[in-house]
Amino acid sequence: MIGRLNHVAIAVPDLDAAAAQYRSTLGATVGERQDEPAHGVTVVFITLPNTKIELLHPLGANSPIAGFLEKNPSGGIHHICYEVDDILAARDRLRDAGARVLGDGEPKIGAHGKPVLFLHPKDFTGTLIELEQA
Amino acid sequence: MIGRLNHVAIAVPDLDAAAAQYRSTLGATVGERQDEPAHGVTVVFITLPNTKIELLHPLGANSPIAGFLEKNPSGGIHHICYEVDDILAARDRLRDAGARVLGDGEPKIGAHGKPVLFLHPKDFTGTLIELEQA
Repeated sequence: MIGRLNHVAIAVPDLDAAAAQYRSTLGATVGERQDEPAHGVTVVFITLPNTKIELLHPLGANSPIAGFLEKNPSGGIHHICYEVDDILAARDRLRDAGARVLGDGEPKIGAHGKPVLFLHPKDFTGTLIELEQA
Repeated sequence: MIGRLNHVAIAVPDLDAAAAQYRSTLGATVGERQDEPAHGVTVVFITLPNTKIELLHPLGANSPIAGFLEKNPSGGIHHICYEVDDILAARDRLRDAGARVLGDGEPKIGAHGKPVLFLHPKDFTGTLIELEQA
């Protein structure tokens, strides 16, 4: 069911510093800051030859990553995103297997303009998994 | 400098359960258990179309991931691995930029039979980064 690893998301306390480190120290291809007010984050995408790294920083009040950065003030890996062909079929299959889908279970439009869902980390070995319809 | 994302490593408290979940619930291609006594881990690789997930479980006393699982008993994302063309050149560039290389700084042979190094997570936004010579 799951396909490509779409991205690994890393929450960072200083987005410009993290972007500069990936650009200069690690020599990667780093994009521009993008505010995503609907998701409460500002993001910077790093393009690797086979996938992407998504640097995340809180935007506005009630950002969904504010709590993570309080617990992990230096930052850390926040989630991984797998692509699926049909997000509703994937959701139903996962629910049938007893996994919890976060929120109301209806896909939202994610940072790439595609429908996404998040799965409960306690049901997946402590890993927050995003599913994105490719 | 960094190239492909070679893998995302997830430390898990129950390797068979996690492998079964990726195989059955998530429908992924899951390999066999491999003991890596030199690294103190048993691993299962999950092959995605563009990269791999490495499930990690402690093997023997003094496993390098035992402490991580004590802090994160449900498991969690442990590290990400980027490929580099020349690991010694990468190490020297990172040291010149002030980043700390773990251990004695000499590459070890990793789970894929290639030279690897780990970078200090405090120098990379809380992310443990493995570099593997591709």
